[in-house]
Amino acid sequence: MSFNHNYTQVNDFKLHYLREGSGLPLLLVHGWPEYWRTWRKNISDLADYFDVIVPDLRGFGESERSEIVASEGYGIKNHTDDLMTLVDKLGIDKFGFVSHDLGAYVGQRIARKQSTRLRGLFFFDCPYPGIGRRWRDPEHVDEIWYQSFNQQPWAANLIGANRDTCRMYINHFLTHWAGDPDAFDEADREKWVTTFNSGENLQGGFDWYIAADDARKRLMRDGPQPTEPVKVPTRILWGEADPIVKSEWADRLDEYFADYQLDTVPGAGHFVQYERPELANNAISSFFSDLA
Amino acid sequence: MSFNHNYTQVNDFKLHYLREGSGLPLLLVHGWPEYWRTWRKNISDLADYFDVIVPDLRGFGESERSEIVASEGYGIKNHTDDLMTLVDKLGIDKFGFVSHDLGAYVGQRIARKQSTRLRGLFFFDCPYPGIGRRWRDPEHVDEIWYQSFNQQPWAANLIGANRDTCRMYINHFLTHWAGDPDAFDEADREKWVTTFNSGENLQGGFDWYIAADDARKRLMRDGPQPTEPVKVPTRILWGEADPIVKSEWADRLDEYFADYQLDTVPGAGHFVQYERPELANNAISSFFSDLA
Repeated sequence: MSFNHNYTQVNDFKLHYLREGSGLPLLLVHGWPEYWRTWRKNISDLADYFDVIVPDLRGFGESERSEIVASEGYGIKNHTDDLMTLVDKLGIDKFGFVSHDLGAYVGQRIARKQSTRLRGLFFFDCPYPGIGRRWRDPEHVDEIWYQSFNQQPWAANLIGANRDTCRMYINHFLTHWAGDPDAFDEADREKWVTTFNSGENLQGGFDWYIAADDARKRLMRDGPQPTEPVKVPTRILWGEADPIVKSEWADRLDEYFADYQLDTVPGAGHFVQYERPELANNAISSFFSDLA
Repeated sequence: MSFNHNYTQVNDFKLHYLREGSGLPLLLVHGWPEYWRTWRKNISDLADYFDVIVPDLRGFGESERSEIVASEGYGIKNHTDDLMTLVDKLGIDKFGFVSHDLGAYVGQRIARKQSTRLRGLFFFDCPYPGIGRRWRDPEHVDEIWYQSFNQQPWAANLIGANRDTCRMYINHFLTHWAGDPDAFDEADREKWVTTFNSGENLQGGFDWYIAADDARKRLMRDGPQPTEPVKVPTRILWGEADPIVKSEWADRLDEYFADYQLDTVPGAGHFVQYERPELANNAISSFFSDLA
């Protein structure tokens, strides 16, 4: 299966995206440590009904990394601005947004800043403010170490020392965070390693953790701030076996989303779209079809 | 300066220790990531007055690592048993105990289990139960990641991939934890790298984090349990610039030590014995001389 690869200048860098099919435009936005390929099992099915656009966020996959912000990291505001610039360049008015992990933060920012552009939000395993102080629960401290490690100025050099070191690191997340440690097939895992071990991709992903650190510490210290719930229609599938963004933390979704439906997925982990592609594709299709 | 290197069978492994001077026996016990050399600037001065014994804990330096406990890690109980076996083999009855970090846990265990053997306890930057839940303070979460990272089953292979990866990792701690990032001279840092990159030394140190994890999580969840204070005379020097075991956490020492004197050391970090050797040697000498 081969996809249409596109490159376009966005802000000060060259952004890579796939585009397949026609219909309502649907952005599929990856997390960390991911890139467009995390949607490999979703693109073709969804392209039967939608105009599927799958970007690599800046610093990920085949998109370039920005030098100008390297010192302060590259955060949600920047990633959001990049994607809105892409959508504008493509002449798209309204679109659907499908994401998880880092991508889910971007989706929530668009919903708060430019909600009229969104048809709907679809999240897998959604990090949101209601998780609050629970990020640093004693039982969770052994899970969040990478959020600090990734900020170390030497981390990309250490992990990127060679293909083996990069493989050990990336494989940890693709196996530990999945419901079944063998969920990602060998060929995909090797492609992941090749991609993250290329150019500045390791640092490109780590930039997000540097940028997010202040807000993350504030949330762990003060808990979430009250805020107007997102009004954009929202659908969430949450893997019950996700060890990093736990499905039991969905208990405060109604404080942050006014119109949402949640289902948890037994046996699935952090990567529901890859681990349960048929379920995911059906849920995405019917959610956005019903909205249309 | 060359020291007398000795090797002796202790339990099921060959333990390496230095021994210099004569007088009251004084054990100098290193932490992580350290080995006997962290006492390099202390041994000769102290040997003028004491029988100085500087062991490498099992799995560190030139001491062997134990295979039999690799799966569950190698904890304080085991390290304590090793050192008491060594002391017994050397025919020593009473001794002084000087330590910090991992070694400080061993000292506190001896004080609680076999206090009659101890003349006195001397700690630098002392981890003790009173730190409690503060280990996971929001402002401290970015400091404790290594306690989780070191438990990963692939960590020793990744860090030990080659000399450069090992150097990046070990140097982080020798620079970040010191008051002055240049506190450790280049030659010593290279010896540290050689030592940790030899045999099973990386995993030997990581074993402690695996073994300590349950107690660590319990402390972060429930806080410290009330306990009878240690009655052995105790002297503590604490570097004010230590970012990992913070001197402000000395505020509950009186709940855990009945007879102690604390001084903080401006500008010094985690490795006071190496960063301020003259101050450290004078304080150790006068403390144990006054006790005699």
